[in-house]
Amino acid sequence: MNLNFASDNTGPVAAPIMDALNAANAGAAMPYGNDPWMPGVRDAIRAAFRWPEAEVLLVATGTGANALALAGLIEPWESVICHRIAHVEEDECGAPEFYTGGAKLVLADGEGGKMTPDTLRAALARTGTKGVHGVQRGALSLTNVTEAGTVYSLAEIGALQETAREAGLALHLDGARFANACAALGCGAAELADGFDVVSFGGTKNGCMAVEAIVLRDPAKHWEMQLRRKRAAQLWSKHRYLAVQMAAYLEGDLWLANARAANAAGQRLAAGLRTLGAELVWEPEANMIFARLDRAAHGRARSEAEYYLMDDVERPLCRLVCDFTKTDAEVDRLLELFRG
Amino acid sequence: MNLNFASDNTGPVAAPIMDALNAANAGAAMPYGNDPWMPGVRDAIRAAFRWPEAEVLLVATGTGANALALAGLIEPWESVICHRIAHVEEDECGAPEFYTGGAKLVLADGEGGKMTPDTLRAALARTGTKGVHGVQRGALSLTNVTEAGTVYSLAEIGALQETAREAGLALHLDGARFANACAALGCGAAELADGFDVVSFGGTKNGCMAVEAIVLRDPAKHWEMQLRRKRAAQLWSKHRYLAVQMAAYLEGDLWLANARAANAAGQRLAAGLRTLGAELVWEPEANMIFARLDRAAHGRARSEAEYYLMDDVERPLCRLVCDFTKTDAEVDRLLELFRG
Amino acid sequence: MNLNFASDNTGPVAAPIMDALNAANAGAAMPYGNDPWMPGVRDAIRAAFRWPEAEVLLVATGTGANALALAGLIEPWESVICHRIAHVEEDECGAPEFYTGGAKLVLADGEGGKMTPDTLRAALARTGTKGVHGVQRGALSLTNVTEAGTVYSLAEIGALQETAREAGLALHLDGARFANACAALGCGAAELADGFDVVSFGGTKNGCMAVEAIVLRDPAKHWEMQLRRKRAAQLWSKHRYLAVQMAAYLEGDLWLANARAANAAGQRLAAGLRTLGAELVWEPEANMIFARLDRAAHGRARSEAEYYLMDDVERPLCRLVCDFTKTDAEVDRLLELFRG
Amino acid sequence: MNLNFASDNTGPVAAPIMDALNAANAGAAMPYGNDPWMPGVRDAIRAAFRWPEAEVLLVATGTGANALALAGLIEPWESVICHRIAHVEEDECGAPEFYTGGAKLVLADGEGGKMTPDTLRAALARTGTKGVHGVQRGALSLTNVTEAGTVYSLAEIGALQETAREAGLALHLDGARFANACAALGCGAAELADGFDVVSFGGTKNGCMAVEAIVLRDPAKHWEMQLRRKRAAQLWSKHRYLAVQMAAYLEGDLWLANARAANAAGQRLAAGLRTLGAELVWEPEANMIFARLDRAAHGRARSEAEYYLMDDVERPLCRLVCDFTKTDAEVDRLLELFRG
Repeated sequence: MNLNFASDNTGPVAAPIMDALNAANAGAAMPYGNDPWMPGVRDAIRAAFRWPEAEVLLVATGTGANALALAGLIEPWESVICHRIAHVEEDECGAPEFYTGGAKLVLADGEGGKMTPDTLRAALARTGTKGVHGVQRGALSLTNVTEAGTVYSLAEIGALQETAREAGLALHLDGARFANACAALGCGAAELADGFDVVSFGGTKNGCMAVEAIVLRDPAKHWEMQLRRKRAAQLWSKHRYLAVQMAAYLEGDLWLANARAANAAGQRLAAGLRTLGAELVWEPEANMIFARLDRAAHGRARSEAEYYLMDDVERPLCRLVCDFTKTDAEVDRLLELFRG
Repeated sequence: MNLNFASDNTGPVAAPIMDALNAANAGAAMPYGNDPWMPGVRDAIRAAFRWPEAEVLLVATGTGANALALAGLIEPWESVICHRIAHVEEDECGAPEFYTGGAKLVLADGEGGKMTPDTLRAALARTGTKGVHGVQRGALSLTNVTEAGTVYSLAEIGALQETAREAGLALHLDGARFANACAALGCGAAELADGFDVVSFGGTKNGCMAVEAIVLRDPAKHWEMQLRRKRAAQLWSKHRYLAVQMAAYLEGDLWLANARAANAAGQRLAAGLRTLGAELVWEPEANMIFARLDRAAHGRARSEAEYYLMDDVERPLCRLVCDFTKTDAEVDRLLELFRG
Repeated sequence: MNLNFASDNTGPVAAPIMDALNAANAGAAMPYGNDPWMPGVRDAIRAAFRWPEAEVLLVATGTGANALALAGLIEPWESVICHRIAHVEEDECGAPEFYTGGAKLVLADGEGGKMTPDTLRAALARTGTKGVHGVQRGALSLTNVTEAGTVYSLAEIGALQETAREAGLALHLDGARFANACAALGCGAAELADGFDVVSFGGTKNGCMAVEAIVLRDPAKHWEMQLRRKRAAQLWSKHRYLAVQMAAYLEGDLWLANARAANAAGQRLAAGLRTLGAELVWEPEANMIFARLDRAAHGRARSEAEYYLMDDVERPLCRLVCDFTKTDAEVDRLLELFRG
Repeated sequence: MNLNFASDNTGPVAAPIMDALNAANAGAAMPYGNDPWMPGVRDAIRAAFRWPEAEVLLVATGTGANALALAGLIEPWESVICHRIAHVEEDECGAPEFYTGGAKLVLADGEGGKMTPDTLRAALARTGTKGVHGVQRGALSLTNVTEAGTVYSLAEIGALQETAREAGLALHLDGARFANACAALGCGAAELADGFDVVSFGGTKNGCMAVEAIVLRDPAKHWEMQLRRKRAAQLWSKHRYLAVQMAAYLEGDLWLANARAANAAGQRLAAGLRTLGAELVWEPEANMIFARLDRAAHGRARSEAEYYLMDDVERPLCRLVCDFTKTDAEVDRLLELFRG
């Protein structure tokens, strides 16, 4: 058994998606988004999001989707409010700053990777209050599933959206784990996307090879975003291989099925960890768990399994992520190793 | 028959590369270039280029490879000399300017998409001559196969490199059709790469799905380039699917075999066009042909075949590109249509 | 006699402007443009330009005025068409690229530093014709007086504006020597500014210490431009010292009087040079002359006078510029030195 | 009496500096830093800082000095650690992000505008710890006098420098009020500059019209910085008018005398405020005071005096700044108004 809980990006491509790639690999197809699959992708997302005028741009990386989405929402002299541990702040090597032309990320606090209307207001108080001298308010970027493995409820999102709208912010959702959030909340794409202007709808972590959709609720900036994507070197020539991934991912709600499988594995793992007396530092609501176990437990587990340690204290914190392929046997073997 | 001569990026993925993608699609693999295939890719390129210390970064688009390569070679206040019709100038929507932080492309003239030492010197005379007031000299970027379908000989490249070195320029090769150039010149990768600092080694146009290698002869900037790639949102999480494409492409010199097939189809097409009395505006030395035919010929051909017209005069100019899959039957059918 | 013909930026500050600086130097004044002089400056420019809604931003350098003006007119993926020898292309070390976020300057040809509708159309044919792949059309930037010392007539400007408007370009005038152009054409500011969207109205070369006005015909982008100016570090805290320069410069049309003096000196010099048999490579229509004289003449002159040589051939080309302080005696002494 | 305590940038130009501007206003001088005053400026700063190889670049704004200084120290994918209320973070509309190409400011906490080795270490723990995924460590930027009106002791600076050096950071001092810090500490320029790589040595707030010196201890990047200054549109053509300001400012330690006067006024004001029962939120150690007084006191004072209120609570916080011209009478009148 290859026990890999390092990330949901260590997994393979789901069979239906790989089948679609193989099936599309015949003859010629026009490049740069003019392939015959792309209109269907757009229509499927319009239907799933219940955004009848939405436009969709596909790129290969989540960082690309986020950075392009934000660049389209704000000016270089504006700011993006995000959580202190947001992926756009911590894990993209400054791609948002690069793509936006040097906008500022303003950090909001909050337990478990979740900001609240209060911490959002505190961040708002630090931006856009100094006239011409300070960077201006621009957008709010939320992540769901959060980087802490927690999930914003629809009501929590609604409250944050309301606060943001009052302050004139545009609204972006980093949905690298959009599917896992829907699965956790028991809702559909339309409910989770509701109220946002732009969604980064992730595929890669949930069974695709490399595809993320930038979904624009309002089509007004579609041409600008196409130019931004090309200029950012994110426009594929053999674009059909992006489009068919996304088509297969949407087909029959594979995205939701995969996410349910990943979350189920995550919940099984979380339950087992609790039994072992591990400290779950945040409530694991989807497929990602942050847990403290003693060194000996990690020593046993890491002899066989791959995952990241986040610190080096007496009971080191680890991150464990289940992708859609994780079996009960794999989860149980990891728990067995921890138990010793 | 799906007659598509629009570009070599309209073709499918070569079977050995698709096989490799399927074979790699099992179990977990560490992300971000830490997959088990990448060291072999690097070693194969070191061997093929005879650059024993080279470092290799994979990205999914040719524009990404070029823009990153140039950004690593020059400062924002420096310039890149390239041919007036170079891809970096005409077809990347300003990606080099974006990635470099606003460097200037200085355009060199020359017949058939090829600059000469004289036209290079003329471009040099327009850059770096105004002290602090002007943009400074930075790099030379050559393309081989050129955007006109011609091929620089090794001697021509050597002469340009010498002129550039005397002027203190760094040297970049846009090798989107590197393989086709080698096939046309009857040389290996090492001969074509010789003398350059960084090569964009193309895969996508020649049978890969989406992969280009940035090859750094000198490893000193490897870490900087990794940061640049991440920040540019070009670092894949499921990186194995880039690596295995490139591995299969290099294996048994598939890259060269594909290019030979594409060039052979191109040469068959060129010969046939000459027989028809078409005007070949530049000498087609690889797999891309620019030809003038009368409107009636285009009318017949375009009822069945796809390709681009470049103008709308009495004898419109068309671009015809053969990828590695083009059969004699397809070429002959196109010629038949032209002939009427 | 300190014979300095190197540039009109080697001259001193005109007495009325220095007087105004001294007069303003008492007590406190609110910073950042909130000084009591700025409203008058705006109103004087509105009146002079006959642009009743114009907004005005002051900065200290001509490069700053140009780069900010262009950044406000175009997007990073758009282009600015300018003459091949334009200041924005040759003498600003890439400031337009920096301020615009990497836009491209597209170069138009034309004798004597002047493009024509035909050469403008040729430049247009090279930009905005490749869909998403190429940089888009953005703005036209003209310079009057040109960098060759020639002057566009109002009719020539009108024809270029018409061509540009048809192509959807925004219109910028680099008016570093706006005053000298008005003096040469015998027109007022309103006639020269007519038809442009944004004018860089120069003061520094024509008797100010360091002040240029960015004049926006349409006030819609005033706030954006204020943010851009601040972010570009071009907003003065002790702004009164910019405002009073410009106020004094506008007062009683000092700007025009200074320019007439400079042009008169330039014309006297040009006439003398013709008498000497110097080759005036372009028709000197204002205060700047490009002339070829033999080495011996330059040897004599440069023992006493300062000016720039542009090449090192048998009859070297020199640039001679007269600022508003040049006396007949200085001009005649320079001619005497040339004559030998 | 024009009671203006809004900022030290509302004041006039000191007489010796205005005299120098007038004296320099005769005849021609070569532009762009080639004036006869600049070498003396450089030598005077070398002597004052005891940095024998230092190079000096003059610009007109403090934001320009800071943004250029930081851009020369770090890469776009690196970070600058600064205090949460630093001018570079709060009051430059993102100029550091613009000039650096999108670097990230990482915020350190600390009472009274001062970070400590502990809060610096906390900021370090948030940057450069995520391999290729996070922005890298770059520089530390300190401000002295701080934006809270407090002053770092030399020992406090030394401790922060040591922590920063251990972490590999370059060291920048925002010295917009460098002179006031020296006056408060009773030290010379050399003591305050010691240990930094680049200092923004401010003139504008302390009696100049508009001049700040970027002082590079190590001359290696002098040429790069000259290119950056030009490209940023911060290079003056009539540069003599920057140089003579700085020359007069350095002459006979005018900078120190002005600062002592400003600080003395500030201290008189602080003492008076304490007598009145105002709450001084931070210890005012130089010429800037943050005080809480009741609404009635502000009502009386603001009928006659100008200064900024920072909030609108029951006892509003105000900022009061004394420039070098503030007289005892002005300070006492303001106190009288507060007292009622």
